[in-house]
Amino acid sequence: MNQNLTAERPTFVTHLECSLTGQCYDADTLHGLSEAGRPLLVRYDLDAVAANLPRPMLDARPTDLWRWRELLPVRRTANVVSLGEIETPLVAIPVSGGANVLVKDEGRLPTGSFKARGLVMAVAMAKELGVTRIAMPTNGNAGAALAAYATRVGIETIVFCPEDTPEVNVREIALQGARVWRVNGLIDDCGAIVGKGAAEGRWFDFSTLKEPYRIEGKKTMGLELAAQFGWKLPDAIFYPTGGGTGLIGMWKAFDELEAMGWIGAERPRMYAVQASGCAPIVKAFEAGQEHAERWEDAHTVAAGIRVPKAVGDFLILRAVRASGGKAVAVGDPAILQAVDDAARHDGLLLCPEGGATLAAYREAVKIGEVDPGETVVLFNCATGLKYPMPAAPRTLDRHQPIDFDAL
Amino acid sequence: MNQNLTAERPTFVTHLECSLTGQCYDADTLHGLSEAGRPLLVRYDLDAVAANLPRPMLDARPTDLWRWRELLPVRRTANVVSLGEIETPLVAIPVSGGANVLVKDEGRLPTGSFKARGLVMAVAMAKELGVTRIAMPTNGNAGAALAAYATRVGIETIVFCPEDTPEVNVREIALQGARVWRVNGLIDDCGAIVGKGAAEGRWFDFSTLKEPYRIEGKKTMGLELAAQFGWKLPDAIFYPTGGGTGLIGMWKAFDELEAMGWIGAERPRMYAVQASGCAPIVKAFEAGQEHAERWEDAHTVAAGIRVPKAVGDFLILRAVRASGGKAVAVGDPAILQAVDDAARHDGLLLCPEGGATLAAYREAVKIGEVDPGETVVLFNCATGLKYPMPAAPRTLDRHQPIDFDAL
Repeated sequence: MNQNLTAERPTFVTHLECSLTGQCYDADTLHGLSEAGRPLLVRYDLDAVAANLPRPMLDARPTDLWRWRELLPVRRTANVVSLGEIETPLVAIPVSGGANVLVKDEGRLPTGSFKARGLVMAVAMAKELGVTRIAMPTNGNAGAALAAYATRVGIETIVFCPEDTPEVNVREIALQGARVWRVNGLIDDCGAIVGKGAAEGRWFDFSTLKEPYRIEGKKTMGLELAAQFGWKLPDAIFYPTGGGTGLIGMWKAFDELEAMGWIGAERPRMYAVQASGCAPIVKAFEAGQEHAERWEDAHTVAAGIRVPKAVGDFLILRAVRASGGKAVAVGDPAILQAVDDAARHDGLLLCPEGGATLAAYREAVKIGEVDPGETVVLFNCATGLKYPMPAAPRTLDRHQPIDFDAL
Repeated sequence: MNQNLTAERPTFVTHLECSLTGQCYDADTLHGLSEAGRPLLVRYDLDAVAANLPRPMLDARPTDLWRWRELLPVRRTANVVSLGEIETPLVAIPVSGGANVLVKDEGRLPTGSFKARGLVMAVAMAKELGVTRIAMPTNGNAGAALAAYATRVGIETIVFCPEDTPEVNVREIALQGARVWRVNGLIDDCGAIVGKGAAEGRWFDFSTLKEPYRIEGKKTMGLELAAQFGWKLPDAIFYPTGGGTGLIGMWKAFDELEAMGWIGAERPRMYAVQASGCAPIVKAFEAGQEHAERWEDAHTVAAGIRVPKAVGDFLILRAVRASGGKAVAVGDPAILQAVDDAARHDGLLLCPEGGATLAAYREAVKIGEVDPGETVVLFNCATGLKYPMPAAPRTLDRHQPIDFDAL
């Protein structure tokens, strides 16, 4: 049906590279972190990609994630896995945002979040490289995406989440065939359990950026933006930042597109948005540091960005600084207000993390950091339907006379 | 950004027509049901559409719902409203379904259900025709879609739902700016309240098929299928049938595409899927009747198809019969088993109504009604995330030694 899923396509991966030291690694072998303990990045022969993928050929393909095969690591089409990774739409929010604000609604992806982008790629590569058992810590959405894709390719999966992870996420993970455990701690406490089991050889560690391929999947957010904006880029991007894979991935995508000659040297200002109750990247950004310290007593309604320590901290900080953007924190009241406003005035239900980007955008306009005339993209990273909403309903008794004037 | 939302395009609506008597009505006036009390259908000058919309022109547009403007009723681009109505993906379910079974995953649409298709069109037309206040009965998803779009164009909205409507639906409706009331009854009891208020001139009645434009929005399911299958159609379609707007709409779409010369005379067999606890269409189909009687004591886990009486009953029955298909009922246990299997084995979380189509397909294969070699499309009409899922999670104490072998 969809030729993106069935056509044999050439691949252009040359090697993997340590994001800190530049040390090279073989591309067709299973890797976790580099010897320096840092994320590995996938490198491509971009001249060859440009020569083999004329733009009209790309334009003629269905617009889903797998259209980008020449810029993705999967070598064999038989390893492509799919639950329908559509190009996510850009939705205007003229009242709650502004005339030039577009929300990239990632809640439309399989399992309802942008985690599908990273996990579809990581699972396809796990299949390609012969992995049979995976474990992962999650705040909810990543676990759901992993469960769905791993189930589909028959890889056994064990997921650990903080004990206050919303019930809907935990049930979804279980229903989609993974074994899931709540842990009395935060996501890095869950990660410690995963790490221990991995060290004992019990499973492959699928933590954020601890395998090389989630970033390649998340990269497609940047590729899609470039295509949707007609091979220009918006003036600014507000991105909810926990582990930061997507921000790092988009930055990598822009560089690759420039190397191919598809876009110029201009870049959007990248705003890494965190919650005031868990803002390690913001703290490091403001202190001028290259790495971030673990944030103690992390708390926020936006659980997806409640990540006390990110293994790719220096990559986030580098991209934000190189772009001329900032790392910014917003408080829970501003987040909840933004969610409410977008739903009530523009009919768009954001997740709390998406609300955080709107709150940060509003603050940036207020202090003159962003001009309202600039074109801005906010990332709504998951469907708002997974999150608690305020109670509202009233009851009407149809057997009694109805006071229509009071409805 | 998206030219589908901004380009001025010619329109080809000629008139409205009573679906029972064929009586004509003016297209640019606000209508409810026909004088015969039946749904009105929108008619187009299809020769002119074919002459003005060469296929390459259509192919070059973004694939969302608004690409079909020439086959839609909205005259003025200023009345187009959008929350990102993407073309929904076809997802294979090889294990729980079969090698030739594709799920059209309508849960990816705004507000998480196929109701967005109908309501985006009905609200755009309400705006075009000057409506300022709308009321509607809903089992949940239609109300959410109405609230989102009506809020976006500033139309006041009042929604009534059965008292056992899931909390998430009711809260979503309220958060998106509508006033919502639970009523002690079923959807047609809610409809009676809406009808009474409409008769008093308090609001416009937006009940299923009681305004002419939801069917035009739902029609795009058929248009998309034709495009996705390369202007052929699948052998059979299983559609969860409550009010049946989508089935009627797809049938209309196929006729319009044939009149334009874009497809031939072949049609899929249409299977109207209902729940054993609420199967008025199935009862009428099996009795050879043209209309269905109200189903008493309706009950099923698939609340979206808990519709005791459909105003378009005769249109559903005509399409099913003309297609060589059937109206079929499945029990709640088979529905829940299908939902569980699709999630557990194919990583796809269906809503109960989507599960009903899988259950019906399996039964059809078992009795030889459908051959496993035939290409079949099942409609998953909403995201499975809105529905209750079985409890599962277990808790792990990170301060105690972890028995890794037992995970």
